[in-house]
Amino acid sequence: MITRMSSLFLRTLREDPADAEVPSHRLLVRAGYVRRVAPGGYSWLPLGLRVLRNIEAVVRAEMDAIGAQEIQFPALLPKEPYEASGRWTEYGPNVFRLKDRKGADYLLGPTHEELFTLTVKGEYSSYKDYPVMLYQIQTKYRDEARPRAGILRGREFVMKDSYSFDLDDEGLERSYRLHRDAYIRIFDRLGLQYVVVRATSGAMGGSASEEFLAVAPTGEDTYVRSDRSGYAANVEAVTTPAPPERPLEGRPEAQVHHTPNTPTIETLVDFLNEADLGRTFTAADTLKNVLVKTRQPGERQWRLLGIGVPGDREVDLKRVEAALEPAEVSLLEEADFAANPFLVKGYIGPGALAANGVRYLVDPRIVPGTAWATGADKVDHHVVDLLCGRDFTPDGTIEAAEVREGDPSPDGEGVLVAARGIEIGHVFQLGRKYSDAFELDALGADSKPIRITMGSYGIGVSRLVAAIAEQHHDELGLVWPRAVAPADVHVVIAGKDEAVAEGGERIAAQLSERGVRVLLDDRKATPGVKFADAELVGVPTILVVGRGLANGVVEVKDRATGGREEIPFDKAVEHLLGLLGS
Amino acid sequence: MITRMSSLFLRTLREDPADAEVPSHRLLVRAGYVRRVAPGGYSWLPLGLRVLRNIEAVVRAEMDAIGAQEIQFPALLPKEPYEASGRWTEYGPNVFRLKDRKGADYLLGPTHEELFTLTVKGEYSSYKDYPVMLYQIQTKYRDEARPRAGILRGREFVMKDSYSFDLDDEGLERSYRLHRDAYIRIFDRLGLQYVVVRATSGAMGGSASEEFLAVAPTGEDTYVRSDRSGYAANVEAVTTPAPPERPLEGRPEAQVHHTPNTPTIETLVDFLNEADLGRTFTAADTLKNVLVKTRQPGERQWRLLGIGVPGDREVDLKRVEAALEPAEVSLLEEADFAANPFLVKGYIGPGALAANGVRYLVDPRIVPGTAWATGADKVDHHVVDLLCGRDFTPDGTIEAAEVREGDPSPDGEGVLVAARGIEIGHVFQLGRKYSDAFELDALGADSKPIRITMGSYGIGVSRLVAAIAEQHHDELGLVWPRAVAPADVHVVIAGKDEAVAEGGERIAAQLSERGVRVLLDDRKATPGVKFADAELVGVPTILVVGRGLANGVVEVKDRATGGREEIPFDKAVEHLLGLLGS
Repeated sequence: MITRMSSLFLRTLREDPADAEVPSHRLLVRAGYVRRVAPGGYSWLPLGLRVLRNIEAVVRAEMDAIGAQEIQFPALLPKEPYEASGRWTEYGPNVFRLKDRKGADYLLGPTHEELFTLTVKGEYSSYKDYPVMLYQIQTKYRDEARPRAGILRGREFVMKDSYSFDLDDEGLERSYRLHRDAYIRIFDRLGLQYVVVRATSGAMGGSASEEFLAVAPTGEDTYVRSDRSGYAANVEAVTTPAPPERPLEGRPEAQVHHTPNTPTIETLVDFLNEADLGRTFTAADTLKNVLVKTRQPGERQWRLLGIGVPGDREVDLKRVEAALEPAEVSLLEEADFAANPFLVKGYIGPGALAANGVRYLVDPRIVPGTAWATGADKVDHHVVDLLCGRDFTPDGTIEAAEVREGDPSPDGEGVLVAARGIEIGHVFQLGRKYSDAFELDALGADSKPIRITMGSYGIGVSRLVAAIAEQHHDELGLVWPRAVAPADVHVVIAGKDEAVAEGGERIAAQLSERGVRVLLDDRKATPGVKFADAELVGVPTILVVGRGLANGVVEVKDRATGGREEIPFDKAVEHLLGLLGS
Repeated sequence: MITRMSSLFLRTLREDPADAEVPSHRLLVRAGYVRRVAPGGYSWLPLGLRVLRNIEAVVRAEMDAIGAQEIQFPALLPKEPYEASGRWTEYGPNVFRLKDRKGADYLLGPTHEELFTLTVKGEYSSYKDYPVMLYQIQTKYRDEARPRAGILRGREFVMKDSYSFDLDDEGLERSYRLHRDAYIRIFDRLGLQYVVVRATSGAMGGSASEEFLAVAPTGEDTYVRSDRSGYAANVEAVTTPAPPERPLEGRPEAQVHHTPNTPTIETLVDFLNEADLGRTFTAADTLKNVLVKTRQPGERQWRLLGIGVPGDREVDLKRVEAALEPAEVSLLEEADFAANPFLVKGYIGPGALAANGVRYLVDPRIVPGTAWATGADKVDHHVVDLLCGRDFTPDGTIEAAEVREGDPSPDGEGVLVAARGIEIGHVFQLGRKYSDAFELDALGADSKPIRITMGSYGIGVSRLVAAIAEQHHDELGLVWPRAVAPADVHVVIAGKDEAVAEGGERIAAQLSERGVRVLLDDRKATPGVKFADAELVGVPTILVVGRGLANGVVEVKDRATGGREEIPFDKAVEHLLGLLGS
């Protein structure tokens, strides 16, 4: 196939678009791949659409290879299934809603768990029907508060979403693994550098969950990784190794001290060190107790929850929310303190919590035998040498403390460092949330119903175009990996000479006959303009037919390395076929 | 490729769906191609999606072949361009509208003239850039008052819409012709029986316009065709041949008669025939004058318009609207008659209209020299022998009279007969409506601006699945043309014998290796169930591996003709490849 730039609907831009913050946005617009139509809404011009379709083809091939079956749902969906699952409310303003001419409520589908569940329920009934994996590659909608970075976070975008339906947890584990492996193959084929991070489930509810993040300093997602092993996780999913327990016997008694004006950790540590207690205290020796209130879905009643963390760390509310999901979490208001006078602000200790029946969860570092300086539930008083397991017994542990660079990696190898990435995929053991909501059962061999367990797996297909561009570009333009490039070879006719034009046409025709996708720059433009456009457009191999033709040579340029090579004109086609591996 | 029915997400239904009115709806649901999700919203199950994709591929190939370039727009579009073109208002309740979280207005795109025009304006500036043809294959939305017949008239559907941009009318004519020819190739390849009818433009505004209708008794569109020639047209587009003019000299004088109680044509004709005027009158000898009011777009003022038709025909308001487009047309209300006392209901004649400056258009049969009995603008009075060209002179002609079966065909060959079809394509010379709205100009060689002229061309891609099914089915099920079938060969393993299963598997594998798409019925089901499903699903060639295998033969069945043939097992693959032409 030959695409002629003389008639291609493509006009490159010399200037960066004013609203472009990241390289992919800047270059995809400048190189004429996409155009902005609305906030978070982009049109795909011919070259952009080709890259998108190439990515779709890779995704489709790998989904088909694991036996997933492609179907397609409408994007315009009735309210009822989303009301049944609770997501009509949960999504809040993030979903586009509308009414039809009869006043019935609809939404533009953000994901399709409800519809897939209902469809499987409609078709299947026996345990013999299962397992099944279904997917679609479809346009989806989210009313993002801040659409940004071009197609990286749009309001209309293409996703591959798939869903697995299994009879038992082992089946789900197998479907999950099949998808996870397929995702690895997909992202490898697309030439991406990525990490697989342990993730919490976000608004989806469920159990095992991993995200695929394309490594990019411009990414919106932060994560941590070990500086030594392959460990990587969302901050919300980092687990804290517990230190060994220590003996309770023979330890000093807990002692209450009058500690005037020490409502903060810093003032407390200073006071204790000045009090000459025979040792030096650091913030890590103190126990900070933070109170929140929580409410389970569907409940009206808020409950108090005490959270204890070492005093040198802040409580990370996102980690708390992830740990307590699906419950709502809120900080206390003045009225809450007024209603619970045993909570003495700045001096809260485990004692008053236990005495008043407040659930108390602590950081995993707070193990039996560790001694702490903490509040004594009385203004201007703290207790020192309060021993976990002797003087107080928490109700459990919680991942609530902030994660810091330099913390030991949970896998025991190296320490954590922070990094940024773009979420490109998510695999997720949904469990029975939706099969419970819609009573999706299979009739077992024993005629008893088996509640189906589900997995949900997503890939941001249009976002991948941007993610790949973020990783594959230089200061001159895009540098596409071969698997997604809009053409295999960019043939540049450089010069006005009739023979040069004929030579370029001839090579393009020969390549095309051999199945090579050729972008042929046959425009009336200067070689300088054509070279600059070739760099900007980013086809991996550039063939320049120019002055050298008089000496029987053409130039092959590798867009990625910048390497150039002169090749005899009549060997060029075979040489290029060799490069392309075809 | 082998698709195994043992794991395929397909459950055929024995019963017709309760809401199915037409064969395609009934069979596409029963055979497991589509499922209803919402009013006018359907999901595509695996086999249905394959048929849809096959059709898309044919459409795409023929669009690419004429040099049209594929791009893709969002479906969620901002209000502003549609407000600029006037369509935000014109569409009325037929378009889905919504607001985003900031309260900005959006719509779900029904067609994309505005966006294509703006995009070309954004990229192109010189006359050297033109012509260009762009297209997309995209999900579109219309809030149909009565979605019906499954995917035949849905509210979410797939369309191919393309647009041509030319510097002059000859260019537009060429682009139009290219599309028209491509559509003929597409519909021929898809195995459709169709007619190309002259059409009016509907809500789109513009000039030359033809519709492609798939012939189907269940179609929503009526049209007329000649019983002898290839002429076919929408009723709105039928033109009436004018009879020859007749001399004005030597004709009887017009005479006013007192005709008490004759406000209708029937009572008038009876009265005249009883009045013994020396000849017999029929309704065709009378001139019926109907008053409407019209308003041009953007105007507030309504204007009266008199329409004269032979008294044996009704005025067809749809034809009037088509003839007067883009003006609005409305019937008169009592208040209008009150405000214009010269309009004497039941007795309106050309005289009062002329005297009061009311524009008067007549049916093309009313030519100079024809004599009419018509109202005398006075209660209970008519005039006879009122001669066109002598006693009254219309302001022009209008296609307002109803079209009837038996009317002469406008091309002079045969008479018109009525028929029904499904609109599957539309080619349309838009002209400058949108380039005017958005000031789309090219800078000419003389540095003067050239206003671009546009064409718009649509194919209902998802509707084609239903249209093909309407034409290709029998009482047992679907009968797909080879080009769109979800598989090439349906291999049925008929029997529990191990050897039969092995034989079926072996043939399927051999066919697959040769590039044949095989649907393999490897289910544990009776031959009867499998045969019935094979007929229902409608793959064009069915290969039965059953009891005959013991004698070394398999059976090849042609789904369309029902023809069966026994073939030696070891010749079956070559035989099938021959059938498939591969």
